[in-house]
This record gives sequence, structure tokens and C-alpha cells, in this order.
Amino acid sequence: MGSVLISEVGPRDGLQNCKAVMPTADKVRWIRAMAAAGVKEIEIGSFVSPKLLPQMADTGEVLAEAVTIPGLTVAVLVPNLKGAEAAIAGGAHKITLPMSVSETHSLRNIRKTHAEVIAEAKVIADRLAELPEGRRPHFEGSLSTAFGCTLEGPVAEAKVLACAEALMAAGCDEVGLADTTGYGDPASVRRLIRAVRGAVGAGALTGVHFHNTRGLGLANVLAAHEEGITTFDSSLGGLGGCPTAPGASGNVVTEDLVFMFEAMGIETGIDLEALMATRAMVAEALPGEELYGFTPRAGLPLGFRGMPAPAPAG
Amino acid sequence: MGSVLISEVGPRDGLQNCKAVMPTADKVRWIRAMAAAGVKEIEIGSFVSPKLLPQMADTGEVLAEAVTIPGLTVAVLVPNLKGAEAAIAGGAHKITLPMSVSETHSLRNIRKTHAEVIAEAKVIADRLAELPEGRRPHFEGSLSTAFGCTLEGPVAEAKVLACAEALMAAGCDEVGLADTTGYGDPASVRRLIRAVRGAVGAGALTGVHFHNTRGLGLANVLAAHEEGITTFDSSLGGLGGCPTAPGASGNVVTEDLVFMFEAMGIETGIDLEALMATRAMVAEALPGEELYGFTPRAGLPLGFRGMPAPAPAG
Repeated sequence: MGSVLISEVGPRDGLQNCKAVMPTADKVRWIRAMAAAGVKEIEIGSFVSPKLLPQMADTGEVLAEAVTIPGLTVAVLVPNLKGAEAAIAGGAHKITLPMSVSETHSLRNIRKTHAEVIAEAKVIADRLAELPEGRRPHFEGSLSTAFGCTLEGPVAEAKVLACAEALMAAGCDEVGLADTTGYGDPASVRRLIRAVRGAVGAGALTGVHFHNTRGLGLANVLAAHEEGITTFDSSLGGLGGCPTAPGASGNVVTEDLVFMFEAMGIETGIDLEALMATRAMVAEALPGEELYGFTPRAGLPLGFRGMPAPAPAG
Repeated sequence: MGSVLISEVGPRDGLQNCKAVMPTADKVRWIRAMAAAGVKEIEIGSFVSPKLLPQMADTGEVLAEAVTIPGLTVAVLVPNLKGAEAAIAGGAHKITLPMSVSETHSLRNIRKTHAEVIAEAKVIADRLAELPEGRRPHFEGSLSTAFGCTLEGPVAEAKVLACAEALMAAGCDEVGLADTTGYGDPASVRRLIRAVRGAVGAGALTGVHFHNTRGLGLANVLAAHEEGITTFDSSLGGLGGCPTAPGASGNVVTEDLVFMFEAMGIETGIDLEALMATRAMVAEALPGEELYGFTPRAGLPLGFRGMPAPAPAG
């Protein structure tokens, strides 16, 4: 049945949406515990202004610890060359530049027009090209609001394709599709994946980032997987939320996502029990923050055999 | 893109799991409001012992009101011939006899072995055969715990097929697949639908009943729809819960289910805004009961165009 890569984004997408600032030591403990549970890729933070996002102020320190974990792909989000330089200096394995297909959202999110984002992608790609092969992080352009925008409403497919092509032309290794707003559905997921792969090639789109704002997260993942997508972003406890949708969870919940794939016989390499055990640690480090997820509350089915043996602790 | 039938089971599966007993007038108000929102089929109650399920004691009165709603298919659950007689007398359009594939669960649920359930199905079918065509309700045998059992664990596919064949041989018009325990996943959903349809014919399996215990409800619905299933049970606010899984919602949430299909361009005939408005009525009639659902909390996407015009009030 094959396997998938679960890319945990809780320490970045999750924490940047929490009121509380998680102490550095707790972030590192959480990242280590998830890696020990078998999570192979974690987005550990973002190099943005600490004035805008104080929750991310310690990304450099967290990165320094994360890169010492054997076998873990350490990803970092960067809005510009300055952030990319910090990620490179810290030894990140993957850097992601967000490009909102909704230009209105792009201006609010990273204060850049599309032309400015593409220019930034170009200078980052040029900088990366100077690095020796082994030290060169993978460079992804993430197409935010690809399924619609809470500011602009529907987003035209042609715009998504234009952004994807521009990011690849600027020198990205890959683009990702992000349903920042929870507007996607299984049909639009299939359509857009086919269209983007048609424009930039299947090898240039292997990952998606879905939110669960309207409860469709796992259905959208299923549709994407059936289209050949193999990397799925999610966050522990669904951390992420959306400030404009109180009570609605944000990201796809890692625990439920792993349960779905493992139940289907598709390998994630993650030990579900160990994964769920990290919830207590996160809950303690983020008092008052609600953790989502159905599987942790219901428990695993009686006689559930989907789990592989735990990976050796990293 | 076609259409699907959403069969609301809240007034039966939902309310029988609530501590509070909803007053008859509130049940009728709720059923009328849902029908007015465009819901075409509602399971309004079950004819079981009021000592076991006091929440269902007024099923006869609710049925008498429900059958006066134009265009609504009124379904009732019955555990035996006595219940079937009451459903027939009240003019129900559809009766469902549950048969737990897990015999342990069958004994706990309706105190019958498999042989006894099949014998009951036969006497009900014989009774229905006496009725004139126009007054003969559709007769479904529902295969509970088809994806696994909280008492027995995994359930063998051969057992599901044997139960399905026995129910059809006894005279059911159709069987349904019910994931009573939330053990199903998109892969097992596909496998079991194919196997059961292979055994009894595609026309004898058109509906499924999924729970959302581990958050996979909509993903399982998507898989079933792709296999050709066209009738989906769900309950408003996910009412249903499972006493052994505190905090985990029970049934697939009607609001999220309708949103998913309408977003995909698959017609449900249901006005989402009107549907969501019935939540307040239910919340008021069931103080203290938690209503689930992501779409009602997040609201519809900006510029969402999936909804047809509201159906004329029934």
C-alpha cells in the first residue's frame, strides 16, 4: 500500500496561532518526542520579525537543537532572504517561502505583492545555488490561500497556476498547495492538484497543507493521496486555529491523520501511542490552549494492528 | 456531478444516546424544520421498549406527525415484528432492522442471536408481503458493527457477507453498512462495499451509516461515494456520541456532510443556512448536550455558491 510522509507543522503553524509563547526548552522537548515517535519531518519555526510573532523569536535556538536529531528533516518557514540566510546558517534541511495566491492576503501576511515575492524567491534561489550540494536546503514555494481567501473569496485556478509557474521559474525546487482558509473540498483538491501538476510537472508538487476549518481535512487528504500526493502537513492536536473562526480547529490533526493512514495500511513510520503521549507535554506547556483530535479521545480500536514497531528513539 | 440522499438519523440515533428526553413537540418541530430545509429522509425514532430507551417512548406520536410532512420519507428503526407492526400502523415509509455482525453486540443490543434476527427479518418480510404495494414500507436490514466491534474487536468480512446474504434471503429489500463503532477507514470502506455488493448485488447496498468517533467520518463517506453509494446517514450536530468514548462525537455531522457534498458540486437539495439554523432549536431542547460540527462554527466560505435555492417549506 506504500507510505506517506507526515510533516509536522505544530511548532510553526500551531504555535504562531497560540496566545501563549511556548518556552524554548518545551519546544525542543516536543520536537524530540515527536521525532522519537517516528515523525520524519518537522517545521520547527519561522524566521520572521519577533515583533510580529513573538512566539517564533527563538527559532534560531530551536533550529540549533533540532538539527542534532538524527534522521529528522528540519524545515523552517522564511518570508524573505534575511530569513533564508538564518535558516541556511542554522543548517535547516528545507526552507519554505509562502506566496499567497490572494494578493490581498499576501500583502497582509508578508507585506509583499506577487512581484515582490517572486523577486524574493529569485534572490533566495540564487543564494542557495552558491551552496555546495550537501549543504543546500530543499526550497519550497508554498501557495497559500490556493483554495480561496477569507479576504478575496474564490481564487481563480489560473492565478494558482501562474504563481506556481513563477515560483518554479524563480528557482524553487517544488511548490506546495496550502488551503490556509479551510475552503477546499475533495473535488477542488483533485482539480487543483491535476492542474498544478499539469503546469509544473508532477515532481514539482508532492506536498499539501490542509486545514480542518470545516471538518473536511481528512477527506481532502484522502483525495490528494489518491491524486498521488505523498507529503501531508498536519499539527499535533490540530494546533493552528484560525482567529476568524473561533472554535474551529486549524490544521489537520496529526494523530487522526496518522490513524487514518495506518488503518488503511499505508505506512507513516509513526508510533501512534508515542505520538499521542506527546499531547500531555504540549498541553502542559500551553495552558488554556485547546487540543483537537478524535482518535486521542476515543482511543485506538480494539485489536488495532496498524502500527509498526516504534522507531528507535532519535 | 449527480446528487446524494442525506438521511438524518438525529431524532433516533442521536436522541437515544442523549441523557435528556426531548419533548415530543420539540422533536416534531425539529423534524419539520429539517424537512423545510430540504432534508428528504429522516429516521424519526425506534419502536423499542420504553423501559430500555425512554427517549423513544413517543415514537408513535412523532411518526403520526412526521408522515403528514409532504415529500418526506419517514424511516423508523424496529428490533422485531412488534415494532414493525407499529411502524406499519403509523404509515412509516421505511423500516430498518439492525443486525449486529458481532453476535456479542447483537445479544447486548437487541438480545438476539443471528439466527433469531434472521427469523425476525423473515416474519417481518412475510408481514410486509401481505400489504398492498403502495402501503408497503421499504425494508432495510442494517449490518451494525460491520467494521469492527468494541466487544469482539475485528469482524471478519466473511461474517458480514453471510449476514448480508441471510438478510436478503429472509426478504429484506436492501442491506446497509453501519460503522457503529467508528472502526472503519477509507480502505476498509471500499473493500467491504465491493465485497457486499459482490455478494448481494449493487442494488441491494446503496446506503451507509458512519460514525465520526476517530474523525474519519467524512473521509469514509468520500470513499463510499466513490464506490457508488448514494445514501448517507448523519445526524445534526453529530448527536449520537458513544458512551465508551467520552468527548468523541458519534455520527457524521449532517452540517459538515452537506457542506462537503455541496462544495463538491454534488446536490443534496438541502439549504445549508436553514439546516444550521435548526441547531439553535435542538440546543435549546437538549440543555447541556454538546453539538459538534466544524462548518457551523466556521461559517460558510466567502462567496460560497454551492447552495441551491431553499426548497419550499414542507
